[in-house]
Amino acid sequence: MVSRYKSFVYVEDLSRHIGEQVTLRGWVYDKTAKGKLVFIKLRDGSGTVQCVLFKPNVDEAIAEAAAQLTQESSVEIIGTVRAEERAPGGVELDVQDVRIHQLSANYPITPKEHGVEFLMEHRHLWLRSTRQHAIMRVRAQVVKAIRDFFDGNGFKLQDSPIFTPNACEGTSTLFETDYFDLGKAYLTQSGQLYAEATAMALGRVYTFGPTFRAEKSKTRRHLTEFWMVEPEMAWFDLNDDMDLAEDLVEYIVQHVLATSQRELLALGRDISKLEKVRRPFHRMSYSEAVEWLNANNVKLNRKQADGTEIQVDFPWGEDFGAPQEEALMTQFEKPCIIHRYPSEVKAFYMKRDPEDSRVVLAMDMLAPEGAGEIIGGSQREDDHDALLARLRHEQLPEEAFQWYLDLRKFGSVPHAGFGLGLERTVKWITGAEHIREVIPFPRMIYRIVP
Amino acid sequence: MVSRYKSFVYVEDLSRHIGEQVTLRGWVYDKTAKGKLVFIKLRDGSGTVQCVLFKPNVDEAIAEAAAQLTQESSVEIIGTVRAEERAPGGVELDVQDVRIHQLSANYPITPKEHGVEFLMEHRHLWLRSTRQHAIMRVRAQVVKAIRDFFDGNGFKLQDSPIFTPNACEGTSTLFETDYFDLGKAYLTQSGQLYAEATAMALGRVYTFGPTFRAEKSKTRRHLTEFWMVEPEMAWFDLNDDMDLAEDLVEYIVQHVLATSQRELLALGRDISKLEKVRRPFHRMSYSEAVEWLNANNVKLNRKQADGTEIQVDFPWGEDFGAPQEEALMTQFEKPCIIHRYPSEVKAFYMKRDPEDSRVVLAMDMLAPEGAGEIIGGSQREDDHDALLARLRHEQLPEEAFQWYLDLRKFGSVPHAGFGLGLERTVKWITGAEHIREVIPFPRMIYRIVP
Repeated sequence: MVSRYKSFVYVEDLSRHIGEQVTLRGWVYDKTAKGKLVFIKLRDGSGTVQCVLFKPNVDEAIAEAAAQLTQESSVEIIGTVRAEERAPGGVELDVQDVRIHQLSANYPITPKEHGVEFLMEHRHLWLRSTRQHAIMRVRAQVVKAIRDFFDGNGFKLQDSPIFTPNACEGTSTLFETDYFDLGKAYLTQSGQLYAEATAMALGRVYTFGPTFRAEKSKTRRHLTEFWMVEPEMAWFDLNDDMDLAEDLVEYIVQHVLATSQRELLALGRDISKLEKVRRPFHRMSYSEAVEWLNANNVKLNRKQADGTEIQVDFPWGEDFGAPQEEALMTQFEKPCIIHRYPSEVKAFYMKRDPEDSRVVLAMDMLAPEGAGEIIGGSQREDDHDALLARLRHEQLPEEAFQWYLDLRKFGSVPHAGFGLGLERTVKWITGAEHIREVIPFPRMIYRIVP
Repeated sequence: MVSRYKSFVYVEDLSRHIGEQVTLRGWVYDKTAKGKLVFIKLRDGSGTVQCVLFKPNVDEAIAEAAAQLTQESSVEIIGTVRAEERAPGGVELDVQDVRIHQLSANYPITPKEHGVEFLMEHRHLWLRSTRQHAIMRVRAQVVKAIRDFFDGNGFKLQDSPIFTPNACEGTSTLFETDYFDLGKAYLTQSGQLYAEATAMALGRVYTFGPTFRAEKSKTRRHLTEFWMVEPEMAWFDLNDDMDLAEDLVEYIVQHVLATSQRELLALGRDISKLEKVRRPFHRMSYSEAVEWLNANNVKLNRKQADGTEIQVDFPWGEDFGAPQEEALMTQFEKPCIIHRYPSEVKAFYMKRDPEDSRVVLAMDMLAPEGAGEIIGGSQREDDHDALLARLRHEQLPEEAFQWYLDLRKFGSVPHAGFGLGLERTVKWITGAEHIREVIPFPRMIYRIVP
């Protein structure tokens, strides 16, 4: 028994129906008339096809229906599929019938330029436009690539919880909610700590879900709600971690190239730049990066006591900001991993480098073309006493971390992992200007609707 | 260049290394000694293998290391893979070397029976036990089946937001958080309304993420944080929706049967019952279900004014509870879809049945073996004025729904969708007794740690 829904024909499948009569269901993206011809550009979510109505071939009522069609009217069009080499999808439709479902009046988004605020207010409709539609399709492919990569390499998905009981790293950037009689719950900023527990049970795991930061950052790279994938692997060291991160990012980019040529074209993306994203990527230590910055005269602005600014060499020990990262990446066409950061600028759970106690076995991956950091990761501290000392040094509540310390008491093993920001990755791959365009309904400090 | 991490050998791959010397890395699940033999059951997250150490074959130091091993000690074991038909994975390891990484002392979870509260307190360790480990692996396969099904059938993943601006359906079961200068934000209970918007842009979409309910339900079927997959399809009617739901559930169950035989066996699951989950499923209308209940003398307890209870026929118009659903399902070995519920017990956005205005085009899928509801869905109201009347009838804030009403103004089309609860589905398939066992770190009204 074939379900009725399987008898639908979608635009993306039309090339398999050449010479056949089919029924398409969708929305009018554009319409033009020229003498006896009406050209209807129909979109159905899977693609767009030109439907050509030749008036002498149809009843007058049908020609009149076509004449009435407005942008975003919903419609069924019946016609015969014809191969047409010059068309984007390789086909066109010779129209035999037009059945209007709803005529759309005064559709707010027209081909003219709209302001960003207006478009964001109409995000529910803006998603129908070619550019946003293409970005959303690429986003879905990036997620699929990530999941295929991990599922295909022996990893098990293990969802970390969203509600966490303690404000482990300070509450300033956490969203909180009342949780029955148990006090406050906090929305997770990272599933990593829980992934460490599941990695000890399942070996190689990944958690992939929304994460939340109540940061008051108004940049083109910040959302309050964003998706992050975080693999965590027992018995992996920092080198394994970096190898895996390279493999993942190469896989994502090559998967998008293989599946989304049409979308990348619609976005005007320079595909040749993505084609270069092949292993091995570049790698340098934080110390090498500082040396490079200073050798290349990339100065830091520093305020003096009297309010004036002077330019200084980049001091070893400070964290890089966007200007340093951008300067470093001017050298490269492929991503670069910076590793072994000063321990003071990184989180308490990162393992000290046994060869240099000033640094931790951390790594960040920076993407080229100004895209910035897309991955942050590390080998984790697997020694119970060293971790406890770090917790105390950072004045974190020991009690709340008992379960986390347990992982170092009962069969502790070297382990490592990282987090890849989905939206930052999609922004880089699509070339979108602002991160608000790469998630269906972006949440920022000044926007929570629609 | 092969990454070092790719040279790891995992238990699940041992059958490809018969006759070879390999290094395994994992944890001691169990150990017994018998004369000159030591049997070490090693788990590495991918599986469990028996490692056999024959003392005369190894240095004394190695035999001593083996003798020291305790439950959950982390260890590297080097040995030769030998085919062994009687072993669960078809192989055993002849041990040549044992390298202790960390001896585990007083591991809290022993083979003896522990109380549920104790196990929940130690959830981070409990996940290592055979049964929990098997459930987590099945969960990962269920998620993979869901994503493969939709990705393979032309659907695009479109993540709905977690933060929603309005308490659209009353705040009593919503978690809320302060959202900068914009007032309160609420954690989503369902991504459906947003999926309707993305379906109009992309045709067939699904959203799959955590959802939240601040319900004070202490049942074996309720979590405050749970995952739900929600497909939404333009141009689908209720029949298409039910067909798709059947296809999805059949696909999930058959995928688990194909990939997770060992896990289902470890769980003691009666596989023959799952093998019966093949299309077509059963279907009946709500009215037929009420008739069946009354014909089969399934009575409802009703309190009288004087406090006594009497048993009455089930009155048409009330919603079914667990007792009615369980009674109905005693007839069936496969899932059953109940459709066309009274409009008063269902949500405002469901479309009235044009053939019977007392009911809406809703459907719930009940799973057999007492598993209960796993899917709820409907055809949506696609008429602007009818939807507006429903909003007003339910006294919902019109302003907050303007964007949702827009979907009925600009190219409205028939559309339908449903939500499938991940944890309820995993509970059914694994036969787990309580829903807290089917998510790594369950969140319930009385539990938010670890």
